[in-house]
Amino acid sequence: MSPNADVLRPGRGRRPAAEVREAALTAAGAMLLETGMRDLTFEKVAARAKVSKMTLYKWWPSPGALAFEAYFAATEHTLAFADTGDVERDLTAQLRAFIGFLTARDTAVIAELIGTAQTDPELATAFTEGYTLPRRALAVARLRSAQEAGQLRPDVDLESIVDQLWGACYHRLLLRGLPLAPDLAETLVRNVLAGVAPR
Amino acid sequence: MSPNADVLRPGRGRRPAAEVREAALTAAGAMLLETGMRDLTFEKVAARAKVSKMTLYKWWPSPGALAFEAYFAATEHTLAFADTGDVERDLTAQLRAFIGFLTARDTAVIAELIGTAQTDPELATAFTEGYTLPRRALAVARLRSAQEAGQLRPDVDLESIVDQLWGACYHRLLLRGLPLAPDLAETLVRNVLAGVAPR
Repeated sequence: MSPNADVLRPGRGRRPAAEVREAALTAAGAMLLETGMRDLTFEKVAARAKVSKMTLYKWWPSPGALAFEAYFAATEHTLAFADTGDVERDLTAQLRAFIGFLTARDTAVIAELIGTAQTDPELATAFTEGYTLPRRALAVARLRSAQEAGQLRPDVDLESIVDQLWGACYHRLLLRGLPLAPDLAETLVRNVLAGVAPR
Repeated sequence: MSPNADVLRPGRGRRPAAEVREAALTAAGAMLLETGMRDLTFEKVAARAKVSKMTLYKWWPSPGALAFEAYFAATEHTLAFADTGDVERDLTAQLRAFIGFLTARDTAVIAELIGTAQTDPELATAFTEGYTLPRRALAVARLRSAQEAGQLRPDVDLESIVDQLWGACYHRLLLRGLPLAPDLAETLVRNVLAGVAPR
């Protein structure tokens, strides 16, 4: 038992804060995949994780913000950026994994999270700071490495490429105009690297 | 008075269906801009438009679907596709107008509509059929004209370009990683036409 433990465990003293936080995230993540965002309340998470509602209020500004953290904590490893030196191959592989992540049955909840963020400012902030900006930074770092290796033109705006690769996938996911399938990865990367005008 | 009029106008006989429909759309559009999606109910629209709630239920499956139709009926003309023969200029001009449309104060409601569609299947269907697919078709028609004029390579998938131009803008709007400003239009069009790899 850590001497810094600050959360009461009835009958057995206190649980360390990190353990309580982990229990809340695990419970919220499982409930999110089972029943989705709309049924996720602090009350239900508290009951399932055996933590107090006050603890949840202390750490998360809204059930949406808790759901968001739980979700991405569980999926972060599927979205790593490789750097083999071959930018076309690396971007295509990462985008294929990303499309799989967006369209997997268990994780279809991401469209719901982004949707809810449009009317939930707490979730929007959590999503931007905890997901959008860090993911953008990782993508730009990989693109910058390619630019430094002379595989992208020096005058190109790397941030806009993020919107044209990953953003293009979100577009199919959220606006549902056409199916989002893994083969789109190759097309998107080829378009933006080589251009679509005749050479 | 049309002999086909099917809606009762108390004390003055019947109003033509088209007139009633127009009144409902006008009321819903105005309320949407004033108070947003969350306060839009069939009851309030019926009261403002002076139509019966039953009429609204007959024509629209949900308040979201009504809101959607009202909104786009009022804004469609701002998103026309020109064809001057210069594909770079035409795409850049259209994208600039589109970014203006997405970011105008009065029309910021579009993020809310797309967000709500993620958990409202009726709105999602209305949005896809009434907006996403028709807008895609217009964009692809302009791109096909460029392809036939030899300004895009013959093997290029035109649908994917739609995701890399308009979808890139939606990405900034909905995931809020970076500001969405009109100058992005030129960058996106240049990237995808010329490619970002050295020639």
